[in-house]
Amino acid sequence: MIGEIIAIGDELTSGRIMNTTSGFAARKLFDAGHTIHAMSTIGDTPSLIGEALIRAIGRADFIIVTGGLGSTDDDITNEAVSRALNRPTMPDLTILAWIREHLSTNKVSPNSPLEKLAWLPGGAEPFDPASRMAGYLLVHDDTPIFFLPGVPEEMMDLMSRVVLPKLAAWQEGATLQTMQRIYKVFAVSESEINRKINELRLPDSIGIGYYPVFPDVHVSVLLRNSDGQNRHGEFEAACSSLEAALGSSIYGSDNDEMEGVVGELLRRGGLQLSVAESCTGGLLSHRITRVPGSSAYFAGGAVTYSNELKHELLGVDNDLLIRVGAVSAETAAAMADGVRARCRTDIGLSITGIAGPDGGSAEKPVGTVYSAISHEHGSSVKKLNLQGSRGRIQSMAVQAGFDMLRLFLLELRKGCD
Amino acid sequence: MIGEIIAIGDELTSGRIMNTTSGFAARKLFDAGHTIHAMSTIGDTPSLIGEALIRAIGRADFIIVTGGLGSTDDDITNEAVSRALNRPTMPDLTILAWIREHLSTNKVSPNSPLEKLAWLPGGAEPFDPASRMAGYLLVHDDTPIFFLPGVPEEMMDLMSRVVLPKLAAWQEGATLQTMQRIYKVFAVSESEINRKINELRLPDSIGIGYYPVFPDVHVSVLLRNSDGQNRHGEFEAACSSLEAALGSSIYGSDNDEMEGVVGELLRRGGLQLSVAESCTGGLLSHRITRVPGSSAYFAGGAVTYSNELKHELLGVDNDLLIRVGAVSAETAAAMADGVRARCRTDIGLSITGIAGPDGGSAEKPVGTVYSAISHEHGSSVKKLNLQGSRGRIQSMAVQAGFDMLRLFLLELRKGCD
Repeated sequence: MIGEIIAIGDELTSGRIMNTTSGFAARKLFDAGHTIHAMSTIGDTPSLIGEALIRAIGRADFIIVTGGLGSTDDDITNEAVSRALNRPTMPDLTILAWIREHLSTNKVSPNSPLEKLAWLPGGAEPFDPASRMAGYLLVHDDTPIFFLPGVPEEMMDLMSRVVLPKLAAWQEGATLQTMQRIYKVFAVSESEINRKINELRLPDSIGIGYYPVFPDVHVSVLLRNSDGQNRHGEFEAACSSLEAALGSSIYGSDNDEMEGVVGELLRRGGLQLSVAESCTGGLLSHRITRVPGSSAYFAGGAVTYSNELKHELLGVDNDLLIRVGAVSAETAAAMADGVRARCRTDIGLSITGIAGPDGGSAEKPVGTVYSAISHEHGSSVKKLNLQGSRGRIQSMAVQAGFDMLRLFLLELRKGCD
Repeated sequence: MIGEIIAIGDELTSGRIMNTTSGFAARKLFDAGHTIHAMSTIGDTPSLIGEALIRAIGRADFIIVTGGLGSTDDDITNEAVSRALNRPTMPDLTILAWIREHLSTNKVSPNSPLEKLAWLPGGAEPFDPASRMAGYLLVHDDTPIFFLPGVPEEMMDLMSRVVLPKLAAWQEGATLQTMQRIYKVFAVSESEINRKINELRLPDSIGIGYYPVFPDVHVSVLLRNSDGQNRHGEFEAACSSLEAALGSSIYGSDNDEMEGVVGELLRRGGLQLSVAESCTGGLLSHRITRVPGSSAYFAGGAVTYSNELKHELLGVDNDLLIRVGAVSAETAAAMADGVRARCRTDIGLSITGIAGPDGGSAEKPVGTVYSAISHEHGSSVKKLNLQGSRGRIQSMAVQAGFDMLRLFLLELRKGCD
């Protein structure tokens, strides 16, 4: 089915808040085989909301509207819909009862603006009237319109749990099947990837897209199956030849993230990791510990911004720091060795460098970064010359540190086989 | 002027990439006094791109188009524009010369797909033909259309450096003036803020908006000046009464960020900070060190996931860990004291808790977090009961730790006055 997504809110058209919900909805709908032909963002102006809705009803099979369902004065979606579609609002009694019960237990004054949440355009079917989450389905001119809250978590929850099943039920017969896989590549340029893939001479039915998603490049392989034949083999063959062409520069696919891929390699190897960071200031640890269950392979580590702490917490030799400086291959190696010894782990990973904007010199400009791995079977150090803002240098240094560890772990595993 | 923003790319309509550029452009244009009445996102389909462009030309004073200007096969904006507006593409010779020079120095084969970058719709005026950045202005039916690359950094650079000045030059006469300020509030609910502000009975000319931006609530104060009178005083008076009503729960305004606000308090107090993290796994350090120049007040710290490391790196008593556990007020205080002593700083800040999804118990459920401050004039510990995903609990714990430190530093300064 062809759909349209409308996001509502002055905070979006003034650019103050990033619209993350439309993209999420589009992704979910795409994965379910639907096509989104347009997404629009409209401010808190009832007439513009009405126009956009009526235009969408005229050209789409279904519509998703997000935002403006709350209780404050700037939440005007219900009022705008009511006017545009000539469906006077009326209170949903289940919602009203829930709000009043909620109010009495929470000691908010009665006749609170929260009661606004219960007044919906005529014909609206709330998804979950006995919960605090807003959201309803309205079918107008045979077009299902799903109204969802703008709060990302609530919207995402309702999208997966309610909207997709309802859409599937709405739709009769078989749908067009889309096969897509995204490969995530680090440290190879878009044009280099493009060149390697062009040499494969993949069939015309396979669409390839290249998307730089800092600090990676994502490569999309797409096959749309509209003839009803099973073309799974064709799709998998294309993916296999692409994987062979790009080799270990592919670190994952689809929803894989670098920290998860590295974490899985550590877990499978039964290895414990500790980290020592200077210029990345905790970002490396943070990325590792975003992953649920990371405590199984991550002990912890130190953020040593000052030279005193590099000595105090990691045991880096003061003479070394004076002789070669904090930003050097020797110090990176000593930090990795030190954190591994102090934390008694199998592997120590370190990053030290100059993230800027200050602190650079002619000899060691901003963006000079060293990363080191310490392991009983040997160590390695890598120098990076990075560019861009402080944030980009920190992100790139962390991704490069992860990638270095990933390739090290792959080699280690190869040695064991 | 009324504008429209069109973002192009299958990676956006399939939801795989978040569209960050449209929001940024909207923000910049809003700040410059323009109104964006619609933003749309269109896939890589030439006919849909053409339709969207022609519709926008009919109803907007200016148009911003982003994306699809690159050299790979899925970059089709120039071709779509050329067809829709009947302006055959022709090569821009300056760009072509630049590409060929670039190619010959980089040893890429001639007739490279990069030459595609030089072929623009007739009438296009490239912004910067002798640079690697794509982007041009095309005036069609007296409507200026700005074509910008989809790469966020390039687009943002051109937006500020080229588009806004050109739009200002295009526009004749005086513009409507918009005054807006955003207040950032932590640890007070949207409805509580709404109630306090309603009591102020601000004049009708002042628009107030509430936006939950996890983990904060943003409060927008807006005055649009269309009558040419100077209403700056009225705006400032509204802001002052709002500041008085919300007090120290406002941590900053406009572009302020919590880590910057806390950093500035540390810098002004001449204080050095160190941190000890358990469940937040480096996020606290990362947030602190995102700020350029944070090395002036931040020494470093430890991420101690395991109990062994809490003892080894922070000197937390093993008996204490056995007696009360890692997630307790006593351990939080010992971590803060320990990191302050080891790092020899004025203040130690610690966070320990259970971020989930595993590790909770009936007594200490997921979301139980303790944060402590250690300082020579005394210590404090706070318990939090947080909810949500692992990522939300980590973010909320860090923001709460920052806010606790902020209020502590404000008290400390009050004591000095």
